[in-house]
This record gives sequence, C-alpha cells and structure tokens, in this order.
Amino acid sequence: MMDKKPLILIANDDGYRAKGFHKLIELMRKIGEVIAISTEKPMSGQSHSITNHDPLRVYLAEQDADYKLYVCSGRPVDCIKIGYRFTDGRMPDLVVSGINHGSNASSNVIYSGTMGAALEACMDGVPAIGFSVDSYSSNAEFDHIECYVDAIARRVLAEGLPKGVCLNVNMPKKSEEAINGVKICRQAKGRWSQTFEHRVDPFGRDYYWLTGYFIEEDEGVDTDLYAIKNNYIAVVPTMFDMTSYSSMEILKDWNL
Amino acid sequence: MMDKKPLILIANDDGYRAKGFHKLIELMRKIGEVIAISTEKPMSGQSHSITNHDPLRVYLAEQDADYKLYVCSGRPVDCIKIGYRFTDGRMPDLVVSGINHGSNASSNVIYSGTMGAALEACMDGVPAIGFSVDSYSSNAEFDHIECYVDAIARRVLAEGLPKGVCLNVNMPKKSEEAINGVKICRQAKGRWSQTFEHRVDPFGRDYYWLTGYFIEEDEGVDTDLYAIKNNYIAVVPTMFDMTSYSSMEILKDWNL
Repeated sequence: MMDKKPLILIANDDGYRAKGFHKLIELMRKIGEVIAISTEKPMSGQSHSITNHDPLRVYLAEQDADYKLYVCSGRPVDCIKIGYRFTDGRMPDLVVSGINHGSNASSNVIYSGTMGAALEACMDGVPAIGFSVDSYSSNAEFDHIECYVDAIARRVLAEGLPKGVCLNVNMPKKSEEAINGVKICRQAKGRWSQTFEHRVDPFGRDYYWLTGYFIEEDEGVDTDLYAIKNNYIAVVPTMFDMTSYSSMEILKDWNL
Repeated sequence: MMDKKPLILIANDDGYRAKGFHKLIELMRKIGEVIAISTEKPMSGQSHSITNHDPLRVYLAEQDADYKLYVCSGRPVDCIKIGYRFTDGRMPDLVVSGINHGSNASSNVIYSGTMGAALEACMDGVPAIGFSVDSYSSNAEFDHIECYVDAIARRVLAEGLPKGVCLNVNMPKKSEEAINGVKICRQAKGRWSQTFEHRVDPFGRDYYWLTGYFIEEDEGVDTDLYAIKNNYIAVVPTMFDMTSYSSMEILKDWNL
C-alpha cells in the first residue's frame, strides 16, 4: 500500500502554455502529486534529442498544494532527465507526456518529442505513457477523451508495465461520434514524403522549408492508424530495443 | 547489372570538418559516386529530430569528379531529407552515416544523430548503415577498421537489407591488438545516469550541464557492447518499428 499519493512527473513538447499540457496536469492532479516540466517553446519533432553543447535553465513557473510547474530551456528528453532533480529525491511512480497536439501514431513515434520523453523515463524503469490527440489545433478539444486518459493512467499506476516498454496512446480528435473504446495496436507502417519548399530570401540566397505529407504503407486492421480512423483510442506498447532479431540470422549467414 | 557507378549519400553529425566524415568520404569514393552532406556544426545527441520551426540553408562546399560535399544548417535527419534534392533525381543506392566519433552501441542508438540519419534513409527504403568508432577523440584513428567499412558497405550494396532494417555498426578504437572480426549482435541493455552539474552564472542565476556515466545492464555475450570490448566490429540490425509485440497480449488482457 502506498502511504503517500503517487508522484506523477509530466513532460511536454508543445511549450508550457499548451492547452493539452494543462489538461494533462488537471487530470493527473486528480490522481496524485504532480511535478510538471515543459519545454519553454513549442518543440515538435525533437525526438530523443538532448542538449549537451549548452547548459540548461529551469525555473519554477507555478505552484500549489501537491503541484509544481517548471519550465526548461531544453528539449522534452532534457525535461525528464532534469525533472528528477525537482522531486525531492523521490522517483516518480508514473511519467506521462503530452497531451500532444497532433498524432504520434505510425512512424511519427520516431520523430516525436512527446514519445522521446516517455521512452527516456522507460529507460529509467519508470512506467511511462505518451498521450497525443489527432489534432494540430492549439485549441484542440479534450473532453471526449478525458475519461480514457484517466483510466489508462490509473491502470498503469496499478499494474506497472513490462520492463523496457512504455505506451504510445493516440486519440481521435473530437467529432460527432462518441469514442468506440480502446484498441491495443501495432505501429502502422508509413513514412513522410521528402518535400521542401524552396524560397529565395531578400538577399538572393536560397532557403528551404520542410513540408510534405504522410504516406500510409499499411492495410492492416491491427494498427494505430486504423484504430484512430475508426474512432478508437490506439495504445501501442513501445520499446527502445531497436534490434531486428529476425534479421540477425540473415546477417550471420553473410559471414562478414 | 548497374550501368552507372552506385550513388552513395553520406551524412554526418560531427560537422563537415570531422575526420571520421572525411574518412568515410574517402572510402566510399572507391566504391561509387558520392554526395556527402553534413551538419554545419558538431551535433551529437540529435537523435531523429528535425527542423520544422526554421528553414534550412544548404551550400556546396567541395566538388570533384563524382563527388560533391554539401553543408546543411540543420540536423542529421534533415541532411538525409534534403540530401535527396541534390542527387539529380536519382535515389541513392546506399546511405552511410558517420564515421561517428564515439560509440552508438547499446541504448545510445536512440540518442544518436548518426543512426537517426541511417534510420531516416531506411524509412525511405534505401539500404543504410551508421558507422561509429568507440573514441570521442577528434583525432581518432581509422586505419584499423577501413577494410571493414569497405567490406560491409560493398556487401550491403550487393545484397540489400531486409525491409525496414538498417545496420548500426560500432567499431573498437585502435589498440595494440588487431580486430578479431565481425559479430552480428543485439543492442545491449544499458542507460545513462541522470546527472547534472549545477553552476551559478556571474549574475547569480542557476544553470545545469548534462553530465553522467553509462550504466551497462546486460551480461549477455551476444551484445554490441560485449563485441566491442572483445575487439570485434559490432553489427546490430536496427529497425524503426518500436512495437513491443510481446506486450500486446498482456495489454489486451487489461480490457481497457
């Protein structure tokens, strides 16, 4: 039995003002003591990157009973690494990241700072969940998914997660239809097109904006993309062991 | 049969002056036509991060017959994405990244910009290899591993790689002993300690430097760390499908 409220560390990559981050803080404060730490600015696409050529700054932005909000000059993974300094020596019982404005389903998991933070905690042996909603709007709605975020977080706190595994939870955006439930999924195959918009600056010099579109390469009905499209919450157990075990025998036969 | 020399795209995260990058260019120029594209500055720990809040700049720094070197203002993954613009519409036959100064074995793969670049190419269906040497020295030596880099690159060009898989090749630093050969390995379990050095700036404000040490959590003899320690070249087939398939059934039983 826990003699204290569970300690929940919350990270985020959309900046400390983001609506999804504050929604996650609100929901987690119903469950436990909350230390929240966010990037200063929106920082999507930061993946598992860390800040090692520059030092970090951290400041306390808000506090209340059983709640503190810190802002960190670094990336989402830095937030987790340095977040442990601000928990009075206690390891968190749960790390949650998000709620990200935009889906991190399919291969987006590998670009995602939200999932970078969750995976970092997972490497430290802390149960961790990245939550994302399939809407890039800064004013995205969350009331249709609140009960799922609450239920998944409570369940992970109660049961833990398999060693080396965290959860990538992607949720449909609000629509006329109610959410159909939760599906345990695999990461869909897909990739981004390589597209850059070429422009010329006022001084005649070239520059390039990354644009592009997502190419789904998977027709499976057991994927996260399929679940979201069909108005389910998609839960993918996600790990940082990137070894392709099935390829090891093929390569051994090469006799390099 | 190829009627042209193979096209090899080379990326790097140690900056365009790095010794390991120029060694890889030298070695690949013996095999094919080379388009090299590097980050402007050293950028270790950039993982799979991309530049989407700012535009990219790219300039041509060197050229010769069958060889061009571009410098990109972005991260290693940006180098791959924008590198395709500079290949005259031809998809590369091979992407190589490195030779990184510093090991990317074990869970370092997830922080690595060198492997971010290789994984990005892999997502595009191009055979890709990240090469790293276990020495952070900017003057690291490479003559003891040249023949292995050459042999592995030629073999991948000839055979291709399983779909969705690239190679993470980590090589011992030069020592008295000769390299014992090549081992196909799995990614060792391990993690970085969360350590920050706290300092106070001349204006009385706190700042934090990320430091720390690596904790090996694996006693296996089939790992990349074990191979390097025993003076073997470690080759880990690496994939971007991060689904933990073995955890799916456990989570299904939760009936979320």
